[in-house]
Amino acid sequence: MNEIIESLHARKSVRAFTGAAVPPELKRAILEAAAQAPSAGCQQLYTILDITDPALKDRLAETCDHQPFIAGAEMVLIFCADCRRWFDAYVEAGCTPRRPGAGDLLLAVDDAVIAAQNAVTAAESLGLGSCYIGDIMEQYEEHRRLLNLPDWVFPAAMLVIGWPTQQQKDRKKPERFDMRHIVHENGYRRGDGAELREMFAGRTGARSFEDYLKAFCARKYNSDFSREMTRSVEAYLRDFEEESI
Amino acid sequence: MNEIIESLHARKSVRAFTGAAVPPELKRAILEAAAQAPSAGCQQLYTILDITDPALKDRLAETCDHQPFIAGAEMVLIFCADCRRWFDAYVEAGCTPRRPGAGDLLLAVDDAVIAAQNAVTAAESLGLGSCYIGDIMEQYEEHRRLLNLPDWVFPAAMLVIGWPTQQQKDRKKPERFDMRHIVHENGYRRGDGAELREMFAGRTGARSFEDYLKAFCARKYNSDFSREMTRSVEAYLRDFEEESI
Repeated sequence: MNEIIESLHARKSVRAFTGAAVPPELKRAILEAAAQAPSAGCQQLYTILDITDPALKDRLAETCDHQPFIAGAEMVLIFCADCRRWFDAYVEAGCTPRRPGAGDLLLAVDDAVIAAQNAVTAAESLGLGSCYIGDIMEQYEEHRRLLNLPDWVFPAAMLVIGWPTQQQKDRKKPERFDMRHIVHENGYRRGDGAELREMFAGRTGARSFEDYLKAFCARKYNSDFSREMTRSVEAYLRDFEEESI
Repeated sequence: MNEIIESLHARKSVRAFTGAAVPPELKRAILEAAAQAPSAGCQQLYTILDITDPALKDRLAETCDHQPFIAGAEMVLIFCADCRRWFDAYVEAGCTPRRPGAGDLLLAVDDAVIAAQNAVTAAESLGLGSCYIGDIMEQYEEHRRLLNLPDWVFPAAMLVIGWPTQQQKDRKKPERFDMRHIVHENGYRRGDGAELREMFAGRTGARSFEDYLKAFCARKYNSDFSREMTRSVEAYLRDFEEESI
């Protein structure tokens, strides 16, 4: 393994920061690494919101499922899938573009998240910790207002970045599933009960398969924030529906 | 800049491969780096399809907007957002999970694309070239059949990987937009005509803003493959709509 692959293995989420400042040149290096990421037709179908206002960080810590550590992050970046900028440019140039649709949104989500992961890798290389906050997809009405989002701009991922505390540095990285469950050759293979039980065997600790999954399902899946995510994403998607053909 | 950030800057898409084999240990290193990527609650909400069948590569080269170079790639990986595996595990464990919705899909797309970008970075570190193929989101019916995709499994991104030809190594990486257009502080700022013209000034070459964007709009946006992408993504999305509350 080389140094780059070692760094990809070493990276784990950080949810507690020392509070020390991130020098502007490091912040710039992270943002520029994001912008160097692959992008469909080099269109860069995203806008990165750099949240510097402490009051806005405080608010996002609340609206993103009440996670106070968000407010303590030195950098808070929101990677928005942006189907607005090119549309506006087409109109400015006298084109007659169609309205963006769900395909354009998903292509822009790909672009935004690809850029976000470059930011994660760049931050890790500088000794900075990071954590994705998927909850930025929730709260359609409030997040659109707080972030001044127009139609066709969707907050696909939020990243918080800062210097990790010693406790976070010492924390063990959670183990991934065995590769044979994650990589399928040529076609999708739906796991049967035996495979699913085998897959989770390393995860459940002292608990049974049933107890582990029942607790996880209640906390993470049949949960309020998870239902809110679908309500909110459906609201964003409606803005991409064609009013007429 | 360190070696890792330099590598993120150096990476550019590769669309022509020498045809030399990729040793199995390098392939494994790329897949394992993908699986080490951040993931929501460490759920790894994706399945990676490793396409090794030459006939299937040939077919994908056709169905993904007729791009023959896909068939010549040593590695073809499809990163599927997977809302099926955990649902099946919940059912196996005796839970009563809700049907997955659009929020679950988008969270899984994030997970899948984050993993894909780790694969890109790992490949680059090994001297291998890569290219994203967004067209895998098209052709709902045919791709579901070819790849044996059940409901709630969505092909979010395809990556082709191989050894770059000298011509591809020598190719200039396309310039990104100026950072001030891409990074907005605290809230979204919709560009006016003057900003949009300034933003594209470095892109249009000898052509006017109007000519450049009219050609791009016709080729990439008001195009058949782009409309097909929305039709197909809408079909996937329908599988995530709630039949009843």
